[in-house]
Amino acid sequence: MIATPIHPPRARWCQLVELALAEDVGPGDITSSLLISPDTTGTGRIEAREPMVACGLVVAEEVFRQVEPGVQFQAGCRDGDPVSADGTLALVTGPLRGILCAERTALNFLSRLSGVAGLTRRFVEAVAGTGARIVDTRKTLPGWRVLDKYATAMGGALNHRFGLYDGILLKDNHIAASGGVAAAVKSALALAPAGLRVQVEVQSADEAEAACSAGADFLLIDNCSPEEVAAIARSCGDRALLEASGGVGLENVRAYAEAGAKRISVGALTHSAPAADISLEIVLGGVAV
Amino acid sequence: MIATPIHPPRARWCQLVELALAEDVGPGDITSSLLISPDTTGTGRIEAREPMVACGLVVAEEVFRQVEPGVQFQAGCRDGDPVSADGTLALVTGPLRGILCAERTALNFLSRLSGVAGLTRRFVEAVAGTGARIVDTRKTLPGWRVLDKYATAMGGALNHRFGLYDGILLKDNHIAASGGVAAAVKSALALAPAGLRVQVEVQSADEAEAACSAGADFLLIDNCSPEEVAAIARSCGDRALLEASGGVGLENVRAYAEAGAKRISVGALTHSAPAADISLEIVLGGVAV
Amino acid sequence: MIATPIHPPRARWCQLVELALAEDVGPGDITSSLLISPDTTGTGRIEAREPMVACGLVVAEEVFRQVEPGVQFQAGCRDGDPVSADGTLALVTGPLRGILCAERTALNFLSRLSGVAGLTRRFVEAVAGTGARIVDTRKTLPGWRVLDKYATAMGGALNHRFGLYDGILLKDNHIAASGGVAAAVKSALALAPAGLRVQVEVQSADEAEAACSAGADFLLIDNCSPEEVAAIARSCGDRALLEASGGVGLENVRAYAEAGAKRISVGALTHSAPAADISLEIVLGGVAV
Amino acid sequence: MIATPIHPPRARWCQLVELALAEDVGPGDITSSLLISPDTTGTGRIEAREPMVACGLVVAEEVFRQVEPGVQFQAGCRDGDPVSADGTLALVTGPLRGILCAERTALNFLSRLSGVAGLTRRFVEAVAGTGARIVDTRKTLPGWRVLDKYATAMGGALNHRFGLYDGILLKDNHIAASGGVAAAVKSALALAPAGLRVQVEVQSADEAEAACSAGADFLLIDNCSPEEVAAIARSCGDRALLEASGGVGLENVRAYAEAGAKRISVGALTHSAPAADISLEIVLGGVAV
Amino acid sequence: MIATPIHPPRARWCQLVELALAEDVGPGDITSSLLISPDTTGTGRIEAREPMVACGLVVAEEVFRQVEPGVQFQAGCRDGDPVSADGTLALVTGPLRGILCAERTALNFLSRLSGVAGLTRRFVEAVAGTGARIVDTRKTLPGWRVLDKYATAMGGALNHRFGLYDGILLKDNHIAASGGVAAAVKSALALAPAGLRVQVEVQSADEAEAACSAGADFLLIDNCSPEEVAAIARSCGDRALLEASGGVGLENVRAYAEAGAKRISVGALTHSAPAADISLEIVLGGVAV
Amino acid sequence: MIATPIHPPRARWCQLVELALAEDVGPGDITSSLLISPDTTGTGRIEAREPMVACGLVVAEEVFRQVEPGVQFQAGCRDGDPVSADGTLALVTGPLRGILCAERTALNFLSRLSGVAGLTRRFVEAVAGTGARIVDTRKTLPGWRVLDKYATAMGGALNHRFGLYDGILLKDNHIAASGGVAAAVKSALALAPAGLRVQVEVQSADEAEAACSAGADFLLIDNCSPEEVAAIARSCGDRALLEASGGVGLENVRAYAEAGAKRISVGALTHSAPAADISLEIVLGGVAV
Repeated sequence: MIATPIHPPRARWCQLVELALAEDVGPGDITSSLLISPDTTGTGRIEAREPMVACGLVVAEEVFRQVEPGVQFQAGCRDGDPVSADGTLALVTGPLRGILCAERTALNFLSRLSGVAGLTRRFVEAVAGTGARIVDTRKTLPGWRVLDKYATAMGGALNHRFGLYDGILLKDNHIAASGGVAAAVKSALALAPAGLRVQVEVQSADEAEAACSAGADFLLIDNCSPEEVAAIARSCGDRALLEASGGVGLENVRAYAEAGAKRISVGALTHSAPAADISLEIVLGGVAV
Repeated sequence: MIATPIHPPRARWCQLVELALAEDVGPGDITSSLLISPDTTGTGRIEAREPMVACGLVVAEEVFRQVEPGVQFQAGCRDGDPVSADGTLALVTGPLRGILCAERTALNFLSRLSGVAGLTRRFVEAVAGTGARIVDTRKTLPGWRVLDKYATAMGGALNHRFGLYDGILLKDNHIAASGGVAAAVKSALALAPAGLRVQVEVQSADEAEAACSAGADFLLIDNCSPEEVAAIARSCGDRALLEASGGVGLENVRAYAEAGAKRISVGALTHSAPAADISLEIVLGGVAV
Repeated sequence: MIATPIHPPRARWCQLVELALAEDVGPGDITSSLLISPDTTGTGRIEAREPMVACGLVVAEEVFRQVEPGVQFQAGCRDGDPVSADGTLALVTGPLRGILCAERTALNFLSRLSGVAGLTRRFVEAVAGTGARIVDTRKTLPGWRVLDKYATAMGGALNHRFGLYDGILLKDNHIAASGGVAAAVKSALALAPAGLRVQVEVQSADEAEAACSAGADFLLIDNCSPEEVAAIARSCGDRALLEASGGVGLENVRAYAEAGAKRISVGALTHSAPAADISLEIVLGGVAV
Repeated sequence: MIATPIHPPRARWCQLVELALAEDVGPGDITSSLLISPDTTGTGRIEAREPMVACGLVVAEEVFRQVEPGVQFQAGCRDGDPVSADGTLALVTGPLRGILCAERTALNFLSRLSGVAGLTRRFVEAVAGTGARIVDTRKTLPGWRVLDKYATAMGGALNHRFGLYDGILLKDNHIAASGGVAAAVKSALALAPAGLRVQVEVQSADEAEAACSAGADFLLIDNCSPEEVAAIARSCGDRALLEASGGVGLENVRAYAEAGAKRISVGALTHSAPAADISLEIVLGGVAV
Repeated sequence: MIATPIHPPRARWCQLVELALAEDVGPGDITSSLLISPDTTGTGRIEAREPMVACGLVVAEEVFRQVEPGVQFQAGCRDGDPVSADGTLALVTGPLRGILCAERTALNFLSRLSGVAGLTRRFVEAVAGTGARIVDTRKTLPGWRVLDKYATAMGGALNHRFGLYDGILLKDNHIAASGGVAAAVKSALALAPAGLRVQVEVQSADEAEAACSAGADFLLIDNCSPEEVAAIARSCGDRALLEASGGVGLENVRAYAEAGAKRISVGALTHSAPAADISLEIVLGGVAV
Repeated sequence: MIATPIHPPRARWCQLVELALAEDVGPGDITSSLLISPDTTGTGRIEAREPMVACGLVVAEEVFRQVEPGVQFQAGCRDGDPVSADGTLALVTGPLRGILCAERTALNFLSRLSGVAGLTRRFVEAVAGTGARIVDTRKTLPGWRVLDKYATAMGGALNHRFGLYDGILLKDNHIAASGGVAAAVKSALALAPAGLRVQVEVQSADEAEAACSAGADFLLIDNCSPEEVAAIARSCGDRALLEASGGVGLENVRAYAEAGAKRISVGALTHSAPAADISLEIVLGGVAV
């Protein structure tokens, strides 16, 4: 079985790299133009300053490539690999001006993506052995959807829908507008295209029962305690796949898994992951050729 | 005295809004197309679910405008205002489909920007009365430079340079390539265009002394303790403006300010700010007109 | 029950309108600049020259708007409406130069989209009463995906997946690479995200049985006769939703429906629909104001 | 004599390829990510399933290149070549994921362009030996102008003007606004830039005579029968080049040519050409390397 | 007779305005953010500081609109009007920050375009009464083709071809590759689409004769003296329209016209026009509202 | 000491090259398609037709690369080099069609940039030995900021601020809105970010004195005579760096330098530089391979 995470097509994130370089470099790197000769070359080491899960190497490589095609980028690990403090993420060799010009943008991408992958990994490990899968949400950074979801996948999560277009999720407002859970589920099942499953948000055991009775086989249990999830799991039995959402942290995620949630979605993976601490050190060079 | 923060021109961040909607909405919001009539209207309340500093209202308004020009956006506060838990950030009224379609993207912008503004405000308050100013860094999210820096300004920070093009900062690699602090400073002062001041990174009192002697009047003291900063402040006297950087947290930021740093830069403002908790509730509607 | 077709967000097709005008107008309409005064106004009638299903009015309106905001566009019907020969699709009033400049591009959009909607309608009517639904394919014109699928929906079809990202369809090459239908289905069911249903292509009753046994509940029966479809329908019973595909024309589509296919996909809807015959006549004007 | 058709610059159609891939692939090909190993390679054969005129090979190659630079594209014929049923248009070799991901978009381009070239070829052959040339129109698919016109040229047609900017054509509304054929022709001849010839639309022998008398040497005879065209040809003699347009089909195109029309324009070449039937078969591979 | 110059569609030059503002304003106008209150309004007068031909008012208006929709732009004259020193080109009223932010970009457009129009006008006046027309060339500023050609038209010139796509001009290298003037002309006449006239470059009376004999009726006489032009005019008689080019200045342009050149092309109109001197003065305001 | 001019990142000017080719080539080069075989190759020499300062070689190379990657571009000198009449700027070898198609656009870039560099060089030489530096302004051609400033740097000038975002310059309207020179200077010094120096425009000795007294150390002396500048230089002494601006020409620039202006800004460098005379001659080829 394969199921590698979807590597988003380069065309989907290249524009963000261009945007990032435009905003950081603008008309040019003035400090380096004053002090670094165009002929000086060097080698920089991109290094982890704390234990982390590496993520974003291909994006970082693209940053250097766009700034200076003469820079060689040699990855020291693969996305998803754990890296210990002081481990090497990559070596970059070439014109020093290009390396310094691309440095901050490349590090900003790596720090963000490794930060997301690392936080995700901690959640994944917290439910290890339970059979539950951590899933991400649409609470990603605007402009970063495919990269953020790539990072959660690299951390071990399963991707949830990428947007409003590739999944059906009946939330409170849809239900209210339809006149209740049962009516909403029945309408959606009758009308939905065949390729998409209908998921419905429920906030209590009663709603879960109503949803199942109406034919739903995929529930999002929102803002319930592990105990409430367990009760729903007992009553729904095999009729539906259960996803828990809302108020999930590292301290209670395993409880949700053990309560019977097969999917646990965590917005914080992408909306509040702290950056991983990564830096670039010139390890060789400053020699004009 | 005026000095309002720079409101970045709309043209600088509009593309990010378009990107964000493209990635979230794609060819369309399938759930709403199944269950919400195009004629149904409603009013949503964008509300704080914890105390926060509001930021990003004009961006959120643009999100709704791009999705559905028929949605009226009425701000409940101004960027930079403190908002208490359950406070209203904005009301949106119009076609329910449009409101639900724009909801997540608008909230993602507001949560990020209010998160950055709020964390910044905590640092600003921690140094209140010392005369020191919190400044941001280039450790912003790729693609988000102007918005992230707008948010730190709304939190009360002073913006540092926006990129490599509007400030001169001699860092370790520039210094190494120039043959030492003094040589680097002298070269830069001789060569730099008149409108930009030369800032130089130092990591010890000796380097600070060398920099000042060479003519530098703006230092970045990197990774030193408050005590080391105080020593440098004593020896440099009025010869240079001192900025402290590296290893600064809420627990020690005031110590740096009291040590004599007039500027204290904090990367975490933008690389690790947790999202503010904001949601949209439909408070009225679901009525087909 | 609502289930209106997804109206693709304007941002998804606006770029195609810009492209179309750029390629047709270029630096300017030279004939009109020679002979039509900028002050001359007029009214044009966009009219059907054969019976058709109207489609694309909002796109045509956008064409006129981009060329000349002073042109008023008044629709004479709604997308999806049947229009008889000589019926009015819209009236446009304003500067004659603008009307003539936008004319061909607007007509090209309308003719294509009404052509697709009309052909679709004929297939839909051919299976009326059988409970089967006509569905479209990915054989759309490059650059036109959302518009083409909007037109099939307006013709009465159900949209199939919009791309490779919002549906799982195991085709011959996937099956070969997985070592057979059963293995492919089992892998896909185990690995797929919960929100997407797994559809599998089969080309015989044996493959259909293998797929169902492996757990598939959504089959694409490719290039089989109605009789073969009927045999599969009998053997699969209620275990799977059946879609027929390949070799379907107006002459045999009903036979497929009656054979038990609940979905019938027709590539020709979008890859070979002839244009609807639509023209614009100036009905009033040529008067300089 | 050379006169190869204009190959539109890649920059003119590359954007359409990007658009097409964005709409089909979106954030990724989910089916292949589940079942095909990134290391599996293979060879696909792009084959004609009916006799056709090949067109669009360089566009198809660009599609594969954008999806996966590691795919080798080897053309089996040249644009404009006749290809028999089961003939090979191209072989593609490389990572199977890339081949499958690009397949549909590449085929959609080839089917459209070969369809247009093939229909054009039939018209061209229908007038063989008469000296008349088939010409295309502006009734192309929005966004496809240069590709559609490239396909008609490959089919053997002569390109008419590409847009409103590179040709002067006085149509009914221009004539009405100018006060008649003679007045319109005289104005246009007096005012037009020297590099563009003035063509005028006429709908009768009287109008043709008026146009010639006013100095026109290039007529578009609209919606006339072959007999009417012949009459105009007799009366105009060598004074003007005659183009016939409107109501031309394969059944009567030769009659127009024999009536004396030296140019015969056919909108259907581009607005109603059915797609050529082309498919991609994996002929070798599925072997993980 | 109408023949107003082609106003290039806004979509053709809007991108240049966006580019210009992006490069000048970047993340924001820092000086005004320090010293001008967002509430201060004012009125600025855009004034001629020397006699000139106004050109570019609609472009300038677009600049202000993009920066600050709240600025009212009131033109004081029309493009093509002569304006005396101290004359008013336009008044702008609204937020002072917006006016100052847009000022330089708007003036840069106006100065360039009025400079081109003014230089053109001088050439046009130099040939007044001779019947010759001044025409422009492709020696425009990259990115400015449609605006530069609009400015020459406003100065009174006739536009030559806009690019390589809307005119046929056989130059020395085409002729050499074809084996001489006669061969090149015959090939081109045989192969060219009907809507475009064939122009051929000649550098002597012999070449002119060869071109005419081969059927050319439109010559570009390159780098010849007025006397040589006169000789060609005598020998060609009415057989061809003559355009003179190369080495034409204000001092000798009339001699070319009197020698019989009906078109005289001048590259300097666009490659070397000095800017018109235009400034913006705040005439009212600085009052915070 | 290094201080090479900032080479603007390719991403900053590539879009202008694309724009320029789009507007010149459009759907294709029709003349060459008629007369030049796709297989013909040749070599062109880009040559100076008057003495000049070369500038823009990398841009010209990019033009050829975008049109036809098969063209080899071999520079004959470096940007900033003086080139005598008939000197070689570059040789281009490859398909003749590609060379002819790119020719005009490449020459237009070279002529403009070499024109700017050459005029700048004349000003630079006029102040040689005085210690004064020529600086450019924001009076560049819209869309050309980074290229124009690159050209002035290649001519020997020092770049002034690139836009409103990387320098603080208090001009008349800012001063008026602040209530006078002293107030404006004090506010700006108090509020400005540390990395940017405050420059203030003064128009008399009194204003200069007020500015210095208020703490300004960088003055822009606007529209004063050399004598007035000398008086200000005497009274300001070492308190401020003086830049002269307004009314500076080749005839008086040295007088300003000798009067004590260390910076002299000249708008004409970019708003009124005549194009350098450069052409491309085919020196070899026309041979079909």
